[in-house]
Amino acid sequence: MATTDHLPPPLQVSQWLNAAQPVTLDGLRGRVVVLHTFQMLCPGCVSHGLPQALRIHRLFPQEQVAVIGLHTVFEHHDVMGPQALRVFLDEYRIAFPVGVDQADPGSPVPLTMQAYGLRGTPSVVVFDRHGHIQLSHFGQIDDLHMGAVIGQLLADAPVQATTRDTAG
Amino acid sequence: MATTDHLPPPLQVSQWLNAAQPVTLDGLRGRVVVLHTFQMLCPGCVSHGLPQALRIHRLFPQEQVAVIGLHTVFEHHDVMGPQALRVFLDEYRIAFPVGVDQADPGSPVPLTMQAYGLRGTPSVVVFDRHGHIQLSHFGQIDDLHMGAVIGQLLADAPVQATTRDTAG
Amino acid sequence: MATTDHLPPPLQVSQWLNAAQPVTLDGLRGRVVVLHTFQMLCPGCVSHGLPQALRIHRLFPQEQVAVIGLHTVFEHHDVMGPQALRVFLDEYRIAFPVGVDQADPGSPVPLTMQAYGLRGTPSVVVFDRHGHIQLSHFGQIDDLHMGAVIGQLLADAPVQATTRDTAG
Amino acid sequence: MATTDHLPPPLQVSQWLNAAQPVTLDGLRGRVVVLHTFQMLCPGCVSHGLPQALRIHRLFPQEQVAVIGLHTVFEHHDVMGPQALRVFLDEYRIAFPVGVDQADPGSPVPLTMQAYGLRGTPSVVVFDRHGHIQLSHFGQIDDLHMGAVIGQLLADAPVQATTRDTAG
Repeated sequence: MATTDHLPPPLQVSQWLNAAQPVTLDGLRGRVVVLHTFQMLCPGCVSHGLPQALRIHRLFPQEQVAVIGLHTVFEHHDVMGPQALRVFLDEYRIAFPVGVDQADPGSPVPLTMQAYGLRGTPSVVVFDRHGHIQLSHFGQIDDLHMGAVIGQLLADAPVQATTRDTAG
Repeated sequence: MATTDHLPPPLQVSQWLNAAQPVTLDGLRGRVVVLHTFQMLCPGCVSHGLPQALRIHRLFPQEQVAVIGLHTVFEHHDVMGPQALRVFLDEYRIAFPVGVDQADPGSPVPLTMQAYGLRGTPSVVVFDRHGHIQLSHFGQIDDLHMGAVIGQLLADAPVQATTRDTAG
Repeated sequence: MATTDHLPPPLQVSQWLNAAQPVTLDGLRGRVVVLHTFQMLCPGCVSHGLPQALRIHRLFPQEQVAVIGLHTVFEHHDVMGPQALRVFLDEYRIAFPVGVDQADPGSPVPLTMQAYGLRGTPSVVVFDRHGHIQLSHFGQIDDLHMGAVIGQLLADAPVQATTRDTAG
Repeated sequence: MATTDHLPPPLQVSQWLNAAQPVTLDGLRGRVVVLHTFQMLCPGCVSHGLPQALRIHRLFPQEQVAVIGLHTVFEHHDVMGPQALRVFLDEYRIAFPVGVDQADPGSPVPLTMQAYGLRGTPSVVVFDRHGHIQLSHFGQIDDLHMGAVIGQLLADAPVQATTRDTAG
């Protein structure tokens, strides 16, 4: 069966923290997914983006809304490696899964960040239950707005994972 | 046609401010309605409830989400009359319609507050597009949660006002 | 003994709340005095001025720093009378003495506000231990700055009330 | 002339950032000195301690109040080295001098932190114009309190550096 239903590219992650096994967007189909991309030494990420991600993680049931982080390091790579990130997540009590965006040998910008066309950090990408992007936002977004976006996507009847996946 | 579809009681208002004509829940059918009940000298209303109502009013298109206030004075009636309320609304730049809950000669608690069983101020009542109460909350509720409630109700396809009104 | 040591004019107050007897600047000589002038329906007073006054009242020993309020109503007199003020102070748990600035039959601006040349609300006036004005500020002033002003005045050796009063 | 006037130990610093030459407490005699000790991955330092240090730095003239930072790393040394610190200071726009507390080969706790008996981060130590410690505080301290401490010390007449230094 043919379809024009293009899904966004998969996450390209060299290493997952806070996760027993790799996280995939396919594996989260049926849930609303909030992907918070950040750099651990980016002030706006620490003061706004990550606290909001933590509030989302706390408010919504995990089987309805999945919160995942992506460490999209595009500058100062030497001091924001996985070992530093692990300490950071521990100190800031960030318990949701965080992937390390796969480095590109030919560019300071890592691969997922390139594929999604993200302009900087923090950026948040919200996927509906079918795996489509419904919001991609660079910078700060207030809680009322973010809540409304998630709420609208939650109102979609949960789909069975097979329905559209096979069409993807 | 018979129906078990009971709608909540109408607002009982002695006077509307910021409104050219009386506001009714029936007249707002088809929109999500956020009703903020408050007293002008209630600290929690001034620091949390009303600022949130203003943020909601600013964020959502008025033809989708209607924000209305209700001044449910149940104490210190002599210093929170309509004249004082008018100054308060002006000083705090509250531009959405605000009704004065109808006094009950036999009780300090006004009539709409009684009919809706509200426990105190601030309280917020959220109605879906069909006029049914989906949230009634006394106290503070955070923006992420409020946004999610509104977002879920917005996701409902707008109904034609006649469909269920006549059944009400 | 002659002196050029002019003290600021006395407070002209028609009524004191939260005080067993009238408060005078003379009676507070020897302490640093923080005079917060406000109107109960002024948003900046409610969100900034009065919370700061409460923090000052909580932090410093009363025998070192006296915090007093002055209700300088210059608009909407009919809805900010003493009865409304009393409810306001009770609701906002303001326990320090608050005076009602004496109305001027010939002007909307009350007498102390005129005598001190205050431009609006909130305004704060800080007196040193000798009764002289060291700061008179209209609008918001941050806590670090306010703390530094009070700290500098506290560093003055307490004077005996008679020393300079008689010269005043 | 003999004296019992012991001054606190000198700062032991392996490297200064944001400083053309090493900073010494002796060299700052005559000013009030606010020493903020922190770790770059300590959440309380990032959300409270350092923002307060920046506000102090902004408010007071530098010839009156000197703000200096001290990176007292006592855990996760491998990811909080000077290179990471340099990026951190740049990202957070911290422009006052910051020293790297000298590591102790025999302990995770660096030497100045040991000598001053500091319990953790953030800690702030405030010295008067004579070089004596007037406040040493672990954890958060509010701006009003901090302002009052600085204000009291500023009120001291500046001492001539020789008066008490030579006695130290």
